[in-house]
Formats: sequence, structure tokens, C-alpha cells
Amino acid sequence: MGEKMTTASQNIPVRLAGRRYALSIGCGHTPSLGKTFKQADWGNLAIVLTNPTIRSKAARQVMASFKKARVATQLLTVPDTERSKSMSSLSRLLNQLAGSVGPGMRPVLVLVGGGVIGDLGGLAAGLYKRGIPYIQVPTTLLAQVDSSIGGKTAVDLPQGKNLVGLILQPKYVHCDTAFLKTLPERQFRSGLVEAFKSAIIGDTQLFGLLERRSVEQIRKSPSDLRTIVSRAARVKVKVVELDEFETKGIRMKLNLGHTFGHALEAAVNYSSVYTHGEAVAIGTVVATRIARSLKLISAGEADRIVVGLDQLGFPIRVGRKIKRTVLYDAMSKDKKWTSGAHRWVLPRRVGQVVVKDGVPVRMVRQAIESVME
Amino acid sequence: MGEKMTTASQNIPVRLAGRRYALSIGCGHTPSLGKTFKQADWGNLAIVLTNPTIRSKAARQVMASFKKARVATQLLTVPDTERSKSMSSLSRLLNQLAGSVGPGMRPVLVLVGGGVIGDLGGLAAGLYKRGIPYIQVPTTLLAQVDSSIGGKTAVDLPQGKNLVGLILQPKYVHCDTAFLKTLPERQFRSGLVEAFKSAIIGDTQLFGLLERRSVEQIRKSPSDLRTIVSRAARVKVKVVELDEFETKGIRMKLNLGHTFGHALEAAVNYSSVYTHGEAVAIGTVVATRIARSLKLISAGEADRIVVGLDQLGFPIRVGRKIKRTVLYDAMSKDKKWTSGAHRWVLPRRVGQVVVKDGVPVRMVRQAIESVME
Repeated sequence: MGEKMTTASQNIPVRLAGRRYALSIGCGHTPSLGKTFKQADWGNLAIVLTNPTIRSKAARQVMASFKKARVATQLLTVPDTERSKSMSSLSRLLNQLAGSVGPGMRPVLVLVGGGVIGDLGGLAAGLYKRGIPYIQVPTTLLAQVDSSIGGKTAVDLPQGKNLVGLILQPKYVHCDTAFLKTLPERQFRSGLVEAFKSAIIGDTQLFGLLERRSVEQIRKSPSDLRTIVSRAARVKVKVVELDEFETKGIRMKLNLGHTFGHALEAAVNYSSVYTHGEAVAIGTVVATRIARSLKLISAGEADRIVVGLDQLGFPIRVGRKIKRTVLYDAMSKDKKWTSGAHRWVLPRRVGQVVVKDGVPVRMVRQAIESVME
Repeated sequence: MGEKMTTASQNIPVRLAGRRYALSIGCGHTPSLGKTFKQADWGNLAIVLTNPTIRSKAARQVMASFKKARVATQLLTVPDTERSKSMSSLSRLLNQLAGSVGPGMRPVLVLVGGGVIGDLGGLAAGLYKRGIPYIQVPTTLLAQVDSSIGGKTAVDLPQGKNLVGLILQPKYVHCDTAFLKTLPERQFRSGLVEAFKSAIIGDTQLFGLLERRSVEQIRKSPSDLRTIVSRAARVKVKVVELDEFETKGIRMKLNLGHTFGHALEAAVNYSSVYTHGEAVAIGTVVATRIARSLKLISAGEADRIVVGLDQLGFPIRVGRKIKRTVLYDAMSKDKKWTSGAHRWVLPRRVGQVVVKDGVPVRMVRQAIESVME
């Protein structure tokens, strides 16, 4: 697809009980966001929340788009790091909102950034004056294929991540893949893991595309990027539509690779030793090995998953520096946190996963040992 | 009704889109709460949040009831004063929740207290792990007839009251009028104003009862108390059922007397010069005078309202210590806050109110001047 056509965009509808909104996926279509906002009449004040440094280019484009459409704007910033997902940041942001909204204004929070901005900002939108509308403008691959979709908002507590939050859908998700051009490579790769995960959960064609490409090829191809973002987004949308509030055991499927992934992240104190995506990649290998032990998946399909991860340059083993004791300790805590002891999301084949209760601890240990260097 | 019958209780259903829950109104029926909880299987851990001092008797009864029913309990306390409705209290409470809930537990927050406990605790329940169930056990008259019903939860910001919150319904509201026996008289009287307000909004029979009684008579009569609490609750339930999320302009009717009432509370810095109920009583007089100026209400019905308030010993005038300038300043701020400039809830007759836009400022001033001593 040539550069000339990159401003075209497609809308993916999200249909939920009593509400409906759209994910707009395009490349370079941010200049039209203000007009879309104006026409939908979501409000008359766009409060843009963004990262003070890294994502400023995207935020500038968003602000310019609102200005062109004569929508009043305000700019608020918060660092896009996990530390911002705290009760004190939330408190500060709510105070800033109270200071930004004049009489008679109908404010809308516009969240331009990665998962942190989306999680924190979505929660603030849900709480300010018992709820104002918000729009997601994800600027990282991880946010575009995963965190901006499904309405999960949260901040952390000292006792654990995402312990405070809401499930609250945005009015609109604006995904411009042009934002991804400037992403650091490791961050891009990390986001790609969630697309790979979505492919395993429900899209064999997407998996086929990811199998045939290198990360470099994907980064350079606007067409591939749009295909990957829109197909991965569709998988997530479909799951969320079936189980918005995570009460039916379906939404849990999105946690493929996350049980061990979270433990690994916790074991390295959420440091840069592993990005979220890298931890999920290794976690997906663990889940695949457990599925194999349980004979849920064929050897051929299991290999496709592990080889696919490896070929895209994702880690599939835990480095020697990580101590087993720390890892198993984190593991048991994580199991408690999810309150489903020994409950795992396991692949049956590429394109299908199951939620399995009562997985024997022995099998879990074997699978973990198989990824330890 | 004799004391023998006081453990009987009645259930008022609250029917909302997709959900339904009950208000249980009785006198002395708290010993049955644990059994109700157990049978409904709302969870397996009752975390009781209450005031460390004043309401301890009610909380002890609640705890005993859970213990008798073999429901695990935890006790958390927070002072039942407006200062507790802060982001920092919320943060502390969420940390305590994270520390109280062990693996595999299904916690339910049980809010034993007045409006502060209910508002803060309900919000914490809505946010902890993206929502756990909660139960209201209101112990003040104000909470029983008003704040425990309708799912409004909130904390304050330095910029204003209730600026952070959710509309989120409880699983159950347990109203035991026996708790009201030990209420200080001024607090009891203050709560009675909201029942009086509900009568004007939608219950002529309740109004008739309140017209014929003194506060002392009501306090001494378990039968009157139950009638008043259940009839006032029904009025509120009916309004909330029609407009749960305050999007249809119906729920606003519950703000009768509150436009001026809030301004008066703000003018005295929410000090004990006026309780909330006292401020709402004077605000109801102001609204009645505006309605009279607009010829929305007959002179006879307007008199019934003002005389009714006066006979129950509620203030119907603003004392000389309150400066007009401070009051008008607070007034204009409050109008902005509610974002409906010159929008008033006005009585048409006892049992019916209307929401009126574009009330002339001149009439508002006249009505306010009529209550200034």
C-alpha cells in the first residue's frame, strides 16, 4: 500500500450491552480526529493528557487537529512510566481536572500515549464528577493492539499492580499506526508479542502473517502494520464483546502467557530486565509446554508457537541471572492474586485457547524448568 | 405497633436495568443480617467499615450477626466526618482492603454508618480490584432515607464536594430503625428534613403524617419511624429507578432545597452553624417562594410547606450572622458547579415538583431576601 493511501482508515465497531463505539484504525489520519470529535459532539473541551517528553509529537498533532476543528483544548502531562499509575498521581490528575474545567464546559479526556496514560487517564475520567467521556489515542504498539481496547483502567497499590480501577469503555479509540514509526525497537517488539498472543487466541491468518515476517519487515511496512493492528484489535474486541466485565471466564483468555509473564516481571521488580512483552513471550512458551503435557495441543502446533516467537526475536527462555526461588515465590503470589489457583489459559492450536482449572503443580514446574537456561 | 413486632421487616425492591436489589427496612432486625448475607452468597468475607467511636454499637451488632452465621469478618474504621471523604482517606482504605483480603476470599464491604462511611466505602468497593460487592447499613436517619439509596458514592476535592465518585449500586441496603434511638436530636432532625423533602417530591400521605407529628413524637414511635423511613425511601427508589445515571433530568428532582442549601453550607464553610438538613430546610423555603413567584404553586400549598417545616422545628430563615455577600458568592459558585445556571427544582404542590430552567435572577434574589432575618 503506497504512502498516498495511508490516510484512509477503517472503523471496527465495539458492541456492548446498551452501548456501541468505534475503534478507528488508520495511518496518518490524526488530522481528522478533531473533526470526528466535533461531529460526534462528545463535548466542547478536549483535555489532552500525555507524556511530557516522548509522545509530544503525537500530542501536538492531536492538539492541532482539535484546534483546526475549533474545539477548545487543554494540555495536561504525566510521565508515561509505571510510577505514574499510583493513587497520588490519580489524586493530582483529578485536582488538575477540577482546575481545568470551567463553568458550562463539557470536558472530554483525550489520552495520548501508552498503557500508563490510558490506564491512569481512563480511571480519572471515570471518577471525575462521577464520570466524563474519554477517548483513547494509543501511541505504542502495545496500547494499539491491547491496552487501549476493552475499557480496563487502573492504578497500582504498594500491594500489587492494577489493584484499583474500573472497567469503563471509552467513547472512541483512535489508532494511528504512523505514531509507531518513532517507537524504540525493543518497545515495538514488546508490543508485537500481544499481537502474536491475539493470533494464537483467535486469528490463524494473523499468525500466518507474523510467521512469514521479520520485525524489521513489519516496521517498514505501513500495510503490514495496519493489518496486524486491526486484526489483533478485532480478536480483542470479539473477546471483550462476549465478556465485558470478566464474569463469564471468556475475557480471561486474553491472559494467555500472562500467568508466568507477570511472575517473571515481579521477579525482576518490573525492571528493564524484561519488558512486559518479553515476559509474556516466555509465559506463552510455558503455557504451550503445559498444554503439550496435558496433550491439549499437538507437537506440531506447539512447535509453531515456540518457533514463531523465536523467529520474531522474542525471548523464549529465562536468563541465568533469574533465581528459581524468587521466580517460584512470585509465581505463587501471582496465582493467589488472580484467585484462580492453578488456572491457566492454554493453547489448543494456533487460533484457539482454553481456560483450564486444576493444572497439576508438577506440570507447571516441568514447563517452567523447560524455559530456564 | 408493639415492641414484640419490631423485628419484622419489609423489603423494597430497587429495579434497575439488568439488576435488582432490595432495601430491607425493619426495627431490630440486624441479628438476621448475617443469615441473609450467607443465604444470598454475596461473598465469604464481610469487611465491616465503620466509625471508630459513635457507631460502634451498630457495628458490634452487625459483626455478631455475621459471626453467628459463620461468615468471616474483618473490621476497618474511619472517622465519620466530612474530612474522611478525601482522596487520601480513599487511598488508605484501599491499602487496608489490599491488606485484608487473603487468597481465595470473595470480600464484600459492609458499610455501617452515616453518609460519609457510605460515600467513601462505596467508592472504595467500586474501585478495589475493579469492583467488589458492597452492602449499606445506614445508621443515621439521613443515610436511611437518602444517602444510602441510589448508589451515589464520592469523595471531595479541595475544589469542591463530591467531585470524585461513581454511581454504583450496592447489593443490599439494610435499614434498622433501632439504630436511630441513640442519634443526637439535632442529627435526627436534620435527617428528617430529607424525609420531608421526599414527601414534597412524591408522597402526600407521608407529608400528612409529618404535618401531624412533632419530632419528639416521631422519635418515640417505632411505628412512625418505620413508616417515615420506608415511605421516604420509596420516593427516592422510584426516582432512581427512572434515572439511575442522572441523564434524564428526573433524578435532579431529589435536589429540591439543595441549590440554596449547598450555598448556605458553603457560606458557613460546612461548619456546625447549619447541618445539611437545616440548610436544605431553608433551601426548600427559598424554592417554594420562587415557585410562588412563578405562580407554579398555590398560596395554600406553599404555606403548607413552610408551616410544616416550621412546626417540625426546622429553621426557615437565615440568621443575621450570615453575610449576604458571602451567601450570594457561594450561590453563584454552586450554580456553576451544577452547570445548570438558574435551574431550580420547584414544588408545584405537596407531592409534585418540577425542574425549571431560566428562573429570573431577580426572583431568586427576592426569594433569598425573604428568608434573611
